[in-house]
Amino acid sequence: MLTFSGRLAALRTVFPEVGIDGFLVPRSDEHLGEYVPAGAERLAWLTGFTGSAGLAIALAERAAIFVDGRYVLQVRQEVDGTLWDYRHVTDEPPADWLKEAVPAGARIGYDPLLIAEETLDRLIRAVPALTFVPLPENPIDRIWQDQPPPPKAAVSIYPAAFAGRSAEEKRAEIAGILKAAGEDAAVITDPPAINWLLNIRGADVPFAPLALGFLILRADATATLFMAPEKISDEVRLHLGNTVSLEPRAALGTALDALKGLRVRVDSQASPVWFAQRLRAAGAEVIAGPDPIALPKACKNPVEQDGARRAHGRDAIALCRYLHWLSENGKTGTQTEISAAAALLAFRAEAPEFREESFPAISGAGENGAIIHYRVSPESNRRLAPNEVYLVDSGAQYEDGTTDVTRTIWTGPDRPPAALKDRFTRVLKGHIGIATLRFPQGVAGAHLDAFARAPLWQAGLDYDHGTGHGVGAYLSVHEGPVSLSRAARPIPLKSGMILSNEPGYYLPGAYGIRLENLLIVQPAAAQADGVKPFLEFETITWAPFDRALIETALLTPAERQWLDGYHAEVWRRVGPQLTGAVATWLASACAPL
Amino acid sequence: MLTFSGRLAALRTVFPEVGIDGFLVPRSDEHLGEYVPAGAERLAWLTGFTGSAGLAIALAERAAIFVDGRYVLQVRQEVDGTLWDYRHVTDEPPADWLKEAVPAGARIGYDPLLIAEETLDRLIRAVPALTFVPLPENPIDRIWQDQPPPPKAAVSIYPAAFAGRSAEEKRAEIAGILKAAGEDAAVITDPPAINWLLNIRGADVPFAPLALGFLILRADATATLFMAPEKISDEVRLHLGNTVSLEPRAALGTALDALKGLRVRVDSQASPVWFAQRLRAAGAEVIAGPDPIALPKACKNPVEQDGARRAHGRDAIALCRYLHWLSENGKTGTQTEISAAAALLAFRAEAPEFREESFPAISGAGENGAIIHYRVSPESNRRLAPNEVYLVDSGAQYEDGTTDVTRTIWTGPDRPPAALKDRFTRVLKGHIGIATLRFPQGVAGAHLDAFARAPLWQAGLDYDHGTGHGVGAYLSVHEGPVSLSRAARPIPLKSGMILSNEPGYYLPGAYGIRLENLLIVQPAAAQADGVKPFLEFETITWAPFDRALIETALLTPAERQWLDGYHAEVWRRVGPQLTGAVATWLASACAPL
Repeated sequence: MLTFSGRLAALRTVFPEVGIDGFLVPRSDEHLGEYVPAGAERLAWLTGFTGSAGLAIALAERAAIFVDGRYVLQVRQEVDGTLWDYRHVTDEPPADWLKEAVPAGARIGYDPLLIAEETLDRLIRAVPALTFVPLPENPIDRIWQDQPPPPKAAVSIYPAAFAGRSAEEKRAEIAGILKAAGEDAAVITDPPAINWLLNIRGADVPFAPLALGFLILRADATATLFMAPEKISDEVRLHLGNTVSLEPRAALGTALDALKGLRVRVDSQASPVWFAQRLRAAGAEVIAGPDPIALPKACKNPVEQDGARRAHGRDAIALCRYLHWLSENGKTGTQTEISAAAALLAFRAEAPEFREESFPAISGAGENGAIIHYRVSPESNRRLAPNEVYLVDSGAQYEDGTTDVTRTIWTGPDRPPAALKDRFTRVLKGHIGIATLRFPQGVAGAHLDAFARAPLWQAGLDYDHGTGHGVGAYLSVHEGPVSLSRAARPIPLKSGMILSNEPGYYLPGAYGIRLENLLIVQPAAAQADGVKPFLEFETITWAPFDRALIETALLTPAERQWLDGYHAEVWRRVGPQLTGAVATWLASACAPL
Repeated sequence: MLTFSGRLAALRTVFPEVGIDGFLVPRSDEHLGEYVPAGAERLAWLTGFTGSAGLAIALAERAAIFVDGRYVLQVRQEVDGTLWDYRHVTDEPPADWLKEAVPAGARIGYDPLLIAEETLDRLIRAVPALTFVPLPENPIDRIWQDQPPPPKAAVSIYPAAFAGRSAEEKRAEIAGILKAAGEDAAVITDPPAINWLLNIRGADVPFAPLALGFLILRADATATLFMAPEKISDEVRLHLGNTVSLEPRAALGTALDALKGLRVRVDSQASPVWFAQRLRAAGAEVIAGPDPIALPKACKNPVEQDGARRAHGRDAIALCRYLHWLSENGKTGTQTEISAAAALLAFRAEAPEFREESFPAISGAGENGAIIHYRVSPESNRRLAPNEVYLVDSGAQYEDGTTDVTRTIWTGPDRPPAALKDRFTRVLKGHIGIATLRFPQGVAGAHLDAFARAPLWQAGLDYDHGTGHGVGAYLSVHEGPVSLSRAARPIPLKSGMILSNEPGYYLPGAYGIRLENLLIVQPAAAQADGVKPFLEFETITWAPFDRALIETALLTPAERQWLDGYHAEVWRRVGPQLTGAVATWLASACAPL
C-alpha cells in the first residue's frame, strides 16, 4: 500500500501521459452529494483529509489543500504539511494560489464528473490564463489499487403508505413542468430526487437511505434509470413499471448522445459539468435550470407530513429518555461525548422503525460545543464535567421520516452563571421568534432568518450559520431548495416544506448553545382579510428545553406562554408513554415556568 | 394646437418617413429621473395621461397605453379610449400586446435616450420576432410645436458647510473606485449623482434641487460636465475648478466617441441605452456596472447628517403646529385635502431655510387614504369629515436636508372604533420594530423589512409597498441603492445612510394608515463582543403619533417605553419653541401613554 507521499508521486507520473500540469481533487462523488461512497473518497485517499468538504490541487512540484474554517485544525492533524500547503478556501482561494503557483498557459486537469458547471466556470473566469482540461478518466482511479467498487446495495420499494403519491403521478407532474418550460427532457443527477420520484430507497451511502443512480426524464413522462441492474429485484423492476426503462451506468453516455437535437434541462449548480459537456458535444440544447424535482419534493404531501409527525413522536420518547439519562449522568464526570452520543443512539434504536442516524451526531461538551460542525473522534473525545454546557445535535432515519434535533443542557449540579443564562435565553427567544411567525405567501427564508437573531443582535451577538435547512422525507437530512438563511436564493416558502429552526450562540473556548426543532410550513389558521393566503409553522419536535438555563425575566409574556404551551404538549404526547423516574423527571421538566 | 387625435395622427405620419411601424413613448426624460422637465412630458402631450409612470405604444392602426395599478382609474379619466387601449402594465404587459397587435418582422422605433439597456433588452427578449429600432431623433419633438425648451435654471454652489466634503475629495474617491475596477472612465447620467459629486445644486425640475446634466468621470479624477454654459456663472465655473471641463449638451456624442478603446462603466439599469450604443459604436468597451457614485452618496458624512438633523428639527416645528391645527380643524368639516396640505406647506414655508416640497403631498381623507400614491386633484378633493381617518405624507427640501414624514390622525371628536385602533397599533408596532433594530454589518434592507410587517402578519394583514427608501441630502427624496424592501437587491446597510421607516395598512374604500419617520444608520452604541461591528437606527423625525388611535394594551412594555421616550423627546426638542395653545396641545400629545 502506497504512503501519502507515494500516492502524490504516483499521481504526478500520470500528468505527462494525459498532458496536464496539475489536477483538481475535490471531495465529491459523481452526484455531488453530501455523503459519498467509499470509492469516491479520492481526496481522503490522496491526502489523508477526512473532512466533509475540501479541494486538493496537485501540481508537478507543489500541492495545496483548501478547507473551510471548520477544518483548519483537522487538516493539520491529518495531512502531511511537507507534501501539501494548507490553505483557507475563502481567505486564500484556489484561484489565487493557481495564479501564483502556475505559469500562464498551463493545463489543469479535472474530472468533469466531480465538479458542477457553475463552480468550474467561476474558476475559469478567475484564472483566465490557464487551460482547464476535462479528463475522460480520473487519474486517481488508475493508481488507487484497492479502490472500493461502487456500492451495490439492494433497492427497496418505498411504500405508498409512506410516500403518499404514486411514482406515476409524480412523473406526470414533473413531466408537466418540463413541457410547460418547452423542454424535451431533464437529466436528474441528485439521488434524493430520483429516489423520491420513483418511490424507491437504497443503502449505498451512510446516513441517508439512497440508491445511487442517474435518470433521464422525458416530457412524455417516460424515464430511463441508470443503475446497476443487480441492485434491482424483480419486485422492484415491476414497481418501476413499463414506462421506466433500466440501463446500467455504463449506458449513460450513449443515452445522452441520443438526446441530440432536443432541449434538455441540466442543473448547472448541482449537476456535474460532464452532463452538459456530453450533451452539447452530441448536439443537444442544454437548458440550465434548477432540478425540476427539488421544489415538488420539498413540499411534503399530507401522508409524508403524517410520517414526519409519527417519526418525531417516536424520536421524542428517545429524546426525553435521553435527557432524563443526561440529567442523572451528565454531572457525574463518568460520561464522555462518545458515550453520551452512544446512549442517545441506543434509546433511538429501540424503535423497530429506526434505520440509522441521519448524520453523525454532534456531541460537544464545554469548549467543543463551540465548534459548530464538531464531530467527536477518539482523539477529541472529552468527559462531560459537572457544571458545564453540553450540546447535542443529532437525528434519525425512521422508515417514515427523518429527524434532526439539538438540545443544550447544563450538566449541574450547581446553578449556571447569569451570563450563560442570558445567552441561552436569547437563543431560545430567537427560536420562539421563528416558531411563532405568520407570513404571507411569497416570503422566503432569507426574509425571516433575522427573527431568530434579533434577541442576540440586541446584545451585539450573533451566530455564523444559517437558521434552518430543508429536511427530507426519509431522505437526506439536508435538502434544498429553500432554507432560513440570508445567503439563500429568495425562493418563497410553501406549504408542506419541512425546515429546521436552529439558532445558536458560540463562545469560542467556552461553550456552544443551539436549540433546534423541525417545522412544517402550514396554511395559517387565521386568514384575516382573505386577500392573500398566509402561512405559519407547525413545530413537530417534542423535547423539553433545559429550564436551568432559562432566564424567565428575559421572556415576554407571549414567549413564556409559547414555552409553557410547548412543554405542556411535550408532556401530553410523551408523558403517557413513560413510567417511573423518567416520567417523574419529564413532568417536572415540562411544568410551567 | 393639435387635439389628442391630431397628435396621434401627426405622429403616425412620421412612421413611413423614418421606416418604423410603431413607436414607444415612455414617461421618461433623458436621465430616466423621477421628476422630469416639462419638455420631456411627451407621454402627457401625446395622450393626456399625467401619471408619474406609464408607456404608450402607437402603431399605424392601433395604440395602447400601459399603466400600473395606481393609475387604472386616472388613465380612463385622462386618456381618450377611442384612440388608446387601456392596459395594466403587469397584468397585460406591452410584450403581450405587441405579439398580438404587430406582425412578425415589424419595426418598432424607440428613443434610445428614454429607455435603459436592461429594460430594452427584456422587451427584445420577450418579443424576439420584432425589430426594435433606435431613432436618432424623437418623432414627437418634430411634431410638438410648443414643446418647452430644456430648463436653464442657474446652477448654485452647494457650500462645504452643508456638503461636508470637497468636490475634489469626492472625485478622488470615485476615481479610485474606477481605478480599482480596472476601468478608465464612467458615464454618469443621474443628476443627483452629478450634483452630489460636484457640490452643486439647481432648479431644473420640481421637488428636487437638481441641475440637469451629464458627466464623464475619468480614473485620473478629471471630469467633463455636459451642461448648458448659460446655467453656469463665473463663480460656479471657478468652484468647479480646472480639472472639470465644461461642454454644452450637444458635445456629448463626440465626447463619448473619443473614449474609443477605453473601458467605460455605464449603469445598464439606470442609464439610457443610447450611451452604451454610442460607446460601442465608437469602439469603447462598455462595462455594465452600478453608478459608482450611488453608494458613496447614500452614506451621508457627519456634516450631511447634521444638516439632516437640523432640517428635521425645523420640520418638527411645522409638523407639530400643523398637527395642532388639524386637532382643531380636522373635525369641523370645513377643511379639504387641498386646504389641509396647503396649511402644512404654509407652516413649513415660514422657515427661511425652506426651499420647496420634496414631493407632492399625499393628503388623503377617509377612503382616499387607502390609495397608496394618492395625489389630490381639484376633482378628487374631499372634505375632512368628523370621525374619520386622515393620512398626510409630505416632505420638504431645506437648504441643509430633505424630509419625508407621514402621520395618520383621527379627526374626532368621538372615539375611533376598536378595529381601527387595532390596525393603527399594529402599524405602530411595526414602525417601532424597525426603529429599535440592532444588526451586524452585512445585513440588507431585504432582511429587515419583515420586522415592520410581523405585527400585521400575525393578524393576516399586510401592505403592498416597501417599508422604506433611501433619502438624499438636499437631493431627491427617493434615493438608491438600498431600501427596506424584500424586492431590493441585498446591498448591505451602511453607517450614514438615511432611510424612511413607513409601514402602513390600507382598507380599500375605507381608510389608509401609514406612519413614517426617517432614520440614519449608525454604529450601534452597544458593541457586546467586539467581534463584528453592529449598526442601529437613529430616528430623526419628531412629531407625535395620534394617541387616540393607539390601543395601549397591544403594546409590549418595551414598545410602550420606546413610544413614551420618543414622545418625551419630541416635547424636549419642539416644546420650548412653541407657546400658548400649540404648546399646551403638544404637551398633552407627548405625555406618557
